[in-house]
Amino acid sequence: MQLKNDLLLRTLNGETTERTPVWMMRQAGRYLPEYRVLREKYGFFERCQTPELACEITLQPVDIVGVDAAILFSDILVVPQAMGLEVQLIESKGPVLPDPIKNNNDLQRVRVPDVNETLGYVFDAIKLIKQELNGRVPLIGFAGAPWTILCYMVQGKGSKTFDEAKAFCYTQPELAHQLLQMITDTTIAYLQQQVAAGADTVQIFDSWGGLLSPADFEELSLQYIRQIVTVLKEKIPVIIFAKGAWHSLENMAATGAKGLGIDWCIQPERARQFAGKDVVLQGNFDPAKLLSPIPVIQKEVKQMLDAFGPGNHIANLGHGILPNVPVDHARAFVDAVKNHKHHS
Amino acid sequence: MQLKNDLLLRTLNGETTERTPVWMMRQAGRYLPEYRVLREKYGFFERCQTPELACEITLQPVDIVGVDAAILFSDILVVPQAMGLEVQLIESKGPVLPDPIKNNNDLQRVRVPDVNETLGYVFDAIKLIKQELNGRVPLIGFAGAPWTILCYMVQGKGSKTFDEAKAFCYTQPELAHQLLQMITDTTIAYLQQQVAAGADTVQIFDSWGGLLSPADFEELSLQYIRQIVTVLKEKIPVIIFAKGAWHSLENMAATGAKGLGIDWCIQPERARQFAGKDVVLQGNFDPAKLLSPIPVIQKEVKQMLDAFGPGNHIANLGHGILPNVPVDHARAFVDAVKNHKHHS
Repeated sequence: MQLKNDLLLRTLNGETTERTPVWMMRQAGRYLPEYRVLREKYGFFERCQTPELACEITLQPVDIVGVDAAILFSDILVVPQAMGLEVQLIESKGPVLPDPIKNNNDLQRVRVPDVNETLGYVFDAIKLIKQELNGRVPLIGFAGAPWTILCYMVQGKGSKTFDEAKAFCYTQPELAHQLLQMITDTTIAYLQQQVAAGADTVQIFDSWGGLLSPADFEELSLQYIRQIVTVLKEKIPVIIFAKGAWHSLENMAATGAKGLGIDWCIQPERARQFAGKDVVLQGNFDPAKLLSPIPVIQKEVKQMLDAFGPGNHIANLGHGILPNVPVDHARAFVDAVKNHKHHS
Repeated sequence: MQLKNDLLLRTLNGETTERTPVWMMRQAGRYLPEYRVLREKYGFFERCQTPELACEITLQPVDIVGVDAAILFSDILVVPQAMGLEVQLIESKGPVLPDPIKNNNDLQRVRVPDVNETLGYVFDAIKLIKQELNGRVPLIGFAGAPWTILCYMVQGKGSKTFDEAKAFCYTQPELAHQLLQMITDTTIAYLQQQVAAGADTVQIFDSWGGLLSPADFEELSLQYIRQIVTVLKEKIPVIIFAKGAWHSLENMAATGAKGLGIDWCIQPERARQFAGKDVVLQGNFDPAKLLSPIPVIQKEVKQMLDAFGPGNHIANLGHGILPNVPVDHARAFVDAVKNHKHHS
């Protein structure tokens, strides 16, 4: 089906479009009262696993704040779940994996699953979303980067430093690479099926890539992301968002990814210099800035868009939207991007 | 008194020394069994406020792991405490300030105190430490950067994002700047008295500087750090450690600080390029890497020292040592630096 709004895809394909496309990480989430209603009624995985609910949640921000793309409502931790680990998601305290991977024995509990068997509900949701979107905007699929998934599988919960995950990699590197490869193989199959079901582009979230030194980022993260991009880029444009890994923008661009997410801690001009001229940059508004008064949001969005310049840019936050952002502030962000005129 | 080991000070003064000096952030801390004994017996602030205990703890790593500098045992949160806020430090859960600053009314509770009255125990500890050190190694004093102190005063506890602190600054910028200036004035007086009591150098810890965009880092953090450095640098060399704020290394060097701390997420070569050729760089071993087997630690320390090259470098971790690091791994780190030969 022909898309009515294909700004995002044309931008990812290198076209300079009539205006900058905009979406927000975690746009289908807790800041929306309509989402909170469903959150009261259904558990997290129930919302992920019921295609009608995942579809309704995915579409909410398209209708309510007017973003230029929908992103599948799901969670990166459905992958370790499909690989055989128990995952509990209590939203007030974050994810818990009660039996994390600590040694070779634990690794025996992990498998590369048949994704159609274990994650079929995601592909069903994607088909339903595509139908309900009816070509209004493109749909973004996603998965976690293998390193970030390993962080949770080994640490067993969220962490500021993920030092248990790092210690696992530093003391048992062979096991770590086995596990990373299993996650990679699962993720490739998972994203391929997301695309087969209708995802127009996919984003790889490496939320904890920025905890690694540049050398370790290559060793533990990027070499696996590269495998994923290599397979997927043949079919759709791929976006990598490795939060904080500014030092490897050049290497990430060299994977063949069409888009690279950046956070607000790097100036757009510097990110462009590091990433090279061809790749699309995505970001990089400080999510906490959406708590500012609306005129401040408008002023700062303008500054951001001017710094990125026209073309090769997707406007977004530099991380997920915060739950306490007023909806009209989120809408002000989106509208400010839509109304911006680049000087030529 | 003449120092027997003045490697750190000579390095900060721009001399190329016979070898690279080494110390570790949080070297006086929980990884040491000798520290844990005192931790069982005395509360956190009791340890800070009793000069004999602070002295004993400060000296432990000098004796046990052989670092080239002692750093005062204390906490950055003694400053908000001296300014009138209650601070609870429960080490298993982190700091809690039960009555944080949210508005103008709250700000009335905060004062710029007489530091001799409120923080005299720190200066007494420094005098005692200097006496007990007896010239073996220099003593580093320290304080938190005003932005980092504001984070705790407003958020009231630790946080990954400190978005309440940021929202305070974005929605009530005048109050934020009033508070930052009060913290700055207190910190200048506090560090001046540390120097008067005998501190040979001071480090300013901006643990949360890296959460800010480059523009906000200048606005909310660096302009206040600059005030502190401007006064202090007349007397002793100053080190700034703004974790994650790689984007502002050039501006930090321009304050006149003699040393800049960096974390492991930036290559030494790149940090040098950003910071310019004159300033001393301090860092940048990944603290989690100290959990690696000792031969790996030795190999990686060598790589780090080679990357920094001889001179203008103080070996350190890129953040505080983790409590679960074996003491012989910490010693292996220190020894690897001491035994390293730079090729000339």
